[in-house]
Amino acid sequence: MLERIEKLIASCSTAVLCSVDENGYPCAKAMLAPRRVEGVKEIWFSTNTSSQSVERYRANDKASVYFYDAATFQGVMLRGVMEVRHDAASREALWQEGDEVYYPQGVTDPDYCVLRFVAENARFYADFHSEDIML
Amino acid sequence: MLERIEKLIASCSTAVLCSVDENGYPCAKAMLAPRRVEGVKEIWFSTNTSSQSVERYRANDKASVYFYDAATFQGVMLRGVMEVRHDAASREALWQEGDEVYYPQGVTDPDYCVLRFVAENARFYADFHSEDIML
Repeated sequence: MLERIEKLIASCSTAVLCSVDENGYPCAKAMLAPRRVEGVKEIWFSTNTSSQSVERYRANDKASVYFYDAATFQGVMLRGVMEVRHDAASREALWQEGDEVYYPQGVTDPDYCVLRFVAENARFYADFHSEDIML
Repeated sequence: MLERIEKLIASCSTAVLCSVDENGYPCAKAMLAPRRVEGVKEIWFSTNTSSQSVERYRANDKASVYFYDAATFQGVMLRGVMEVRHDAASREALWQEGDEVYYPQGVTDPDYCVLRFVAENARFYADFHSEDIML
């Protein structure tokens, strides 16, 4: 099962990150594929410090990360917590050539930050059937 | 702006529906394109009465519906409330030929129900820029 989920995650070019806003509404945002994935438990993204989702995660770290493939009707929702990291080590670890386009000041650009998601459980949908998995 | 959003919605074969679970975590679920769209304000889906998302919307109607096109980097998050409808009129209005595959008892199948989403506001992302719209 975990192998199928890992394969699905690796095949997706985008992920949908969910947060809860200050009024209790769920929010969604598509992001480019994560920069780093460790099993299905730990997933890292890079993003803009100034974004609304970063602000929301700072106020409420409850999160989910959703990957799906519309062609094969497979999806996985990972539920857990999102940590906003702004330290040099995390930012350097995720930095990639070409990121200067978005962050002109480079790896120390104040608008460049890192999101580290840690999953607590997952709900996997495939073959017209859903299954819950503790992680 | 609203015209661009309507066009984006019409072009998407799937939508991501977001809810908040009993522990306060945001949840996401991909669904086939809505059965009915009235402007960008009112969006109708059909789904399984027994699904977790229906249970969550019954407990907490705060919702969002997210459409995005990875190819053109456009996305819209509609925020509002989700109503679960199980009345005959709503179910008949949304029923389509072929639904028997999922609901063998037809339009009165107890597992067939309707979700009516009413948007309060939207956040539209396009051209590397986000904009908020009151609806």
